[in-house]
Amino acid sequence: MSGGEEELIRTHFRGATASRDGVWLGIGDDAALLRSPAPDLVAASCDTLIGGVHFPADAPADAIGHRALAVNLSDMAAVGAAPAWALLSLTVPEEDPDWLRSFSRGFAALADRYGVALVGGDTTRGPLSITVTALGRVAEEGVLCRGGAQPGDGVWVTGTLGDAALGLACWCERSHPLAGDAAWLAARLLRPEPRIEAGRMLAGVASAAIDLSDGLALDLSRLLEASGVGAVIDPERLPASASFRAEGGESHHALHGGDDYELCFTLPPAAEARAEELERAAGVAMTRIGTVDERAGLRGRSGGSTWSVEPKGYDHFGGAS
Amino acid sequence: MSGGEEELIRTHFRGATASRDGVWLGIGDDAALLRSPAPDLVAASCDTLIGGVHFPADAPADAIGHRALAVNLSDMAAVGAAPAWALLSLTVPEEDPDWLRSFSRGFAALADRYGVALVGGDTTRGPLSITVTALGRVAEEGVLCRGGAQPGDGVWVTGTLGDAALGLACWCERSHPLAGDAAWLAARLLRPEPRIEAGRMLAGVASAAIDLSDGLALDLSRLLEASGVGAVIDPERLPASASFRAEGGESHHALHGGDDYELCFTLPPAAEARAEELERAAGVAMTRIGTVDERAGLRGRSGGSTWSVEPKGYDHFGGAS
Repeated sequence: MSGGEEELIRTHFRGATASRDGVWLGIGDDAALLRSPAPDLVAASCDTLIGGVHFPADAPADAIGHRALAVNLSDMAAVGAAPAWALLSLTVPEEDPDWLRSFSRGFAALADRYGVALVGGDTTRGPLSITVTALGRVAEEGVLCRGGAQPGDGVWVTGTLGDAALGLACWCERSHPLAGDAAWLAARLLRPEPRIEAGRMLAGVASAAIDLSDGLALDLSRLLEASGVGAVIDPERLPASASFRAEGGESHHALHGGDDYELCFTLPPAAEARAEELERAAGVAMTRIGTVDERAGLRGRSGGSTWSVEPKGYDHFGGAS
Repeated sequence: MSGGEEELIRTHFRGATASRDGVWLGIGDDAALLRSPAPDLVAASCDTLIGGVHFPADAPADAIGHRALAVNLSDMAAVGAAPAWALLSLTVPEEDPDWLRSFSRGFAALADRYGVALVGGDTTRGPLSITVTALGRVAEEGVLCRGGAQPGDGVWVTGTLGDAALGLACWCERSHPLAGDAAWLAARLLRPEPRIEAGRMLAGVASAAIDLSDGLALDLSRLLEASGVGAVIDPERLPASASFRAEGGESHHALHGGDDYELCFTLPPAAEARAEELERAAGVAMTRIGTVDERAGLRGRSGGSTWSVEPKGYDHFGGAS
């Protein structure tokens, strides 16, 4: 970190996020120094958001700040970790104090909510790009991985699906400000809610988990592949929000649309009885959408017919694939 | 991390860096899971490199890979930490297998040398930009901070100064390939050597330390400010390489030129007797260039006259400041 950069981080971010235990040395030196309680593992993930690729170029700065942290906290949720610290690498075309203040506000509000301390950062000038590294803690016995699903397990998702994809369509195609259902859907895209509590509740209970960043079909296929199994899902059971229905959302939004940041997980039969209790504790709906089986691949089944579901979704590198 | 992105990371980076203890779960899930031995602190830093800002746009890909990791390992060195893990967020304009292979080779060669495991990553399409997060381990009693310098301590630097700044001038102004001294100087810019061993040796011995990314005057001023002290340095004592002298390097290169990634540190009087031993153990020259005193600010003194040294250097945000 260097001078004007340090100043920038200090001005806009220092103290802007929760102070918490475990921060031995925060922003202002060459590296942050963190204390992780002994038996816990440190969970680490990083994701880059590029303007116009991962969010609409005209998204409000506070939404971009929220989203940059949220997508990383979602990774923490997917492994069952409690997020603790974050590092922010921010590249902006120009030093615009209003934009930075707003970005910081969105970032800090979410960080505060989950007790995440911003412990390091770097700012540079260039095309808008934000990389966040999230660090968290998880007990070894509570880790959620993609690779543990077994035939007979139920396939579940949190929340509702397809909202963000439909929200993106509303955002791009309509005049602003959006209102009503369209505004709600756009908020699902711009201010995703990482399912931290759900991840914590599922730790040690779910057999496998992944977060839905690129769409159910693609992300669930990854989970199944990592577990060496397949699954059958019922497209009619995919949970839809009232706004999704009101705005005419279709099954391809729910099946292939990205950016919902819900969790998709598998529950062993013995744990399914606990689903309602988990749902209440996590404060988010959980819906069983199918069953894991031994045959590789993802299939849809409805009204007696079965078909193969293509593991396509939004892949930022390959584009829609 | 998503599909094509995962594939890309797998193809070019998986297994490309040292496997090491402490990696409970590496690349391929939503987050890496790491085990840090109990009493140690986890050191974390992240830095972004932008093409044309932090390295010449025409730099070889393997040098960019080396450099992206090196600048972060240098932060680990500056706090006395042993680097252990890294996360790589890579944004490239197009998927060019040759470029990626070469980038990966440069990154992996340096990672292997210091036993660093690449445990997570993310690739996106966009203007060339690389963010690396380095994670390391350091015992609490061995931490080096910027803020511990005391009046009477000696001011020291590792290696030689100004090489990278002069190397940049050679790189930009001459026809390629460079040869002889110019090539050596350019390599100091493109393939900086993080002073990991020196940092480890100085842990618990030096009273303060910082790495030299933005030039001696600016970075030393930061150390002094963090410590609430000042210092007098003798510009004639700044260590210069043979190539620096041969190519006509001047004092402004050594004083204000960035990108050397040497360590600047302060040694209490009682520790100065150990300097030669530290030098041998670290495998790099250490030179005493001045003395910490109580008066705020950085001053130069030579031949009986004293002057104030401006804390200017290269600040990527503000440009030369």
